[in-house]
Amino acid sequence: MTVRVIEVAQRVLADNDAVAESNRRRFHEAGVFVVNLIASPGAGKTSLIIKTMEALADRARVGVIEGDVAGSLDAEKVLGAGAQDAVQINTEGGCHLEAAMVRRALDDLALDEIDLLFIENVGNLICPTHWDLGQDLKVCLASVAEGDDKPVKYPEIFATSDVVVLNKIDLAEHVDFKRERFYEPLRPLNPRAPVFELSCRSGEGVLHWAHWLLGRR
Amino acid sequence: MTVRVIEVAQRVLADNDAVAESNRRRFHEAGVFVVNLIASPGAGKTSLIIKTMEALADRARVGVIEGDVAGSLDAEKVLGAGAQDAVQINTEGGCHLEAAMVRRALDDLALDEIDLLFIENVGNLICPTHWDLGQDLKVCLASVAEGDDKPVKYPEIFATSDVVVLNKIDLAEHVDFKRERFYEPLRPLNPRAPVFELSCRSGEGVLHWAHWLLGRR
Repeated sequence: MTVRVIEVAQRVLADNDAVAESNRRRFHEAGVFVVNLIASPGAGKTSLIIKTMEALADRARVGVIEGDVAGSLDAEKVLGAGAQDAVQINTEGGCHLEAAMVRRALDDLALDEIDLLFIENVGNLICPTHWDLGQDLKVCLASVAEGDDKPVKYPEIFATSDVVVLNKIDLAEHVDFKRERFYEPLRPLNPRAPVFELSCRSGEGVLHWAHWLLGRR
Repeated sequence: MTVRVIEVAQRVLADNDAVAESNRRRFHEAGVFVVNLIASPGAGKTSLIIKTMEALADRARVGVIEGDVAGSLDAEKVLGAGAQDAVQINTEGGCHLEAAMVRRALDDLALDEIDLLFIENVGNLICPTHWDLGQDLKVCLASVAEGDDKPVKYPEIFATSDVVVLNKIDLAEHVDFKRERFYEPLRPLNPRAPVFELSCRSGEGVLHWAHWLLGRR
């Protein structure tokens, strides 16, 4: 029975991968660079998108697909902050985005008017891990306020991401965050991913990250 | 096909409920009051358990079941902080605890030596929502550092919890947390749940919460 469940899960993921590849082709044809942004609830995904957008003003037109269990708060926020276009996906209880949800969202998104697309995944450090959406870059965002033990406790997402962003570094002194306890388990999990430390609140480190991202495009 | 998937999910949840009921009987026979603690990664679940335990020293013997994707960091922490007994469940990628996992953990837990059992769920505001573990009290823990929009964005867990704890109130001034933006959507979602504001770091509000919990036992 266990084996059978695993086989079904694998087929579902394989189906997802096929849709993700077709999304990826569509993005490449439109010349759009795509970031899949994964984090816990409240780590600062929307803030990172807004601050990156501001840092790249006039250098990249940004679109956003917002994934949430409920509401359209974030799509309104990023549009208010100057996103070229934004689409909200409500998963209605679902704990992660899937490639087919992104494909449907693309019907409402002006791909030819943007250069950079952020897909803000549902707030969850576990379930989105193995669902390819067709992105160029899978970014794991963690915040200092969550504590320094996240790589130990949620190893898969840190191991499989292309980049790690550590947000809210302005809070480090208020929350006993020890950098060595964060980096020591992270390095063997993922020796190649660059790590960007920044604060969306103070702005520290945002330009460095935004320019690196522009360079990857 | 969609309907079929839902039916399977419902049967799985019904099976879980049956095991949860048998856990609940076992807890009641042993005279143990059980809390199912649900929160985002890094909201402070382990800290809340430790601070509550300290506040109730000599008034309640505390046991802990720790649910994590990986590692045994938290079980070691709570044992070091004076828990009477602790068992670690590793879900190996799984995004929530299920009643059957708790039932297996009970084989290793000295139920007759404790009065209060905390089950620390996997860090996740979505997936643990509908999995009864046999608890007396389902507690949703949020932290000020996650922002004030959590009830809007993760309504199900706030709607179905018996108690809401708001942690890290010492950080409120550093993170633009607006109480009215937290409470306004929370109240219609869940008019009956008491809300405890506290800081595990400063200790503010912990005694009030701990004594209320002791009274519920």
